[in-house]
Amino acid sequence: MEQVNIRDKLSLFNEYWSPKIIGELNGQYVKLVKFKGDFVWHKHDSEDEMFFVISGSFKLLLRDKTIELNAGEFFIVPRGIEHKPVADEEAAVMLFEPKSTLNTGNINNGFTKEDLQNL
Amino acid sequence: MEQVNIRDKLSLFNEYWSPKIIGELNGQYVKLVKFKGDFVWHKHDSEDEMFFVISGSFKLLLRDKTIELNAGEFFIVPRGIEHKPVADEEAAVMLFEPKSTLNTGNINNGFTKEDLQNL
Repeated sequence: MEQVNIRDKLSLFNEYWSPKIIGELNGQYVKLVKFKGDFVWHKHDSEDEMFFVISGSFKLLLRDKTIELNAGEFFIVPRGIEHKPVADEEAAVMLFEPKSTLNTGNINNGFTKEDLQNL
Repeated sequence: MEQVNIRDKLSLFNEYWSPKIIGELNGQYVKLVKFKGDFVWHKHDSEDEMFFVISGSFKLLLRDKTIELNAGEFFIVPRGIEHKPVADEEAAVMLFEPKSTLNTGNINNGFTKEDLQNL
């Protein structure tokens, strides 16, 4: 039981598209992830996913529109909705989602990360 | 389905200790609240509660220690743990907790807010 400083946690890793667990509550994880470049199109059939931008900005592509997200903004992707994050420059993002959530959802490829590290 | 800008939402209200709902996912609410002064000691028997500081700072008193939280830091109060937020100056805080969570937990008094407003 201690406070978590987001910037301190961000200083502990540099990899892109590799979520780290920084908190757990009510069956949900709080994660930090750094984005740069293009991620893969995917969806989560049973989990809504919240993207909260800590620094930088990125685009969240949906099939019917593109959401531009800047620091201090968040977006909740409802379960079942395909999405693809794209970051022209590095962005730091906090995720809130059920513990069961796999980063690539229904897709299994080189981006897939299982057994996430606790920071 | 649109992005939420935290500072825009904060500009929409001034009351203290009156959480506003700004998002919903997986049975949880994302809320914004402004703190100033002393809140009431309380606990949530069935809900863990996350306090994420957007601006300012506040103290989260627990029975055995005090957690000082500044902007960019969060703390998760486990279910069943008594706590009392105290803010010498105004602080803006994002909460992440189950939809069932009452702001004053096991206490019902002048601070209790039911039927929260959606911003």
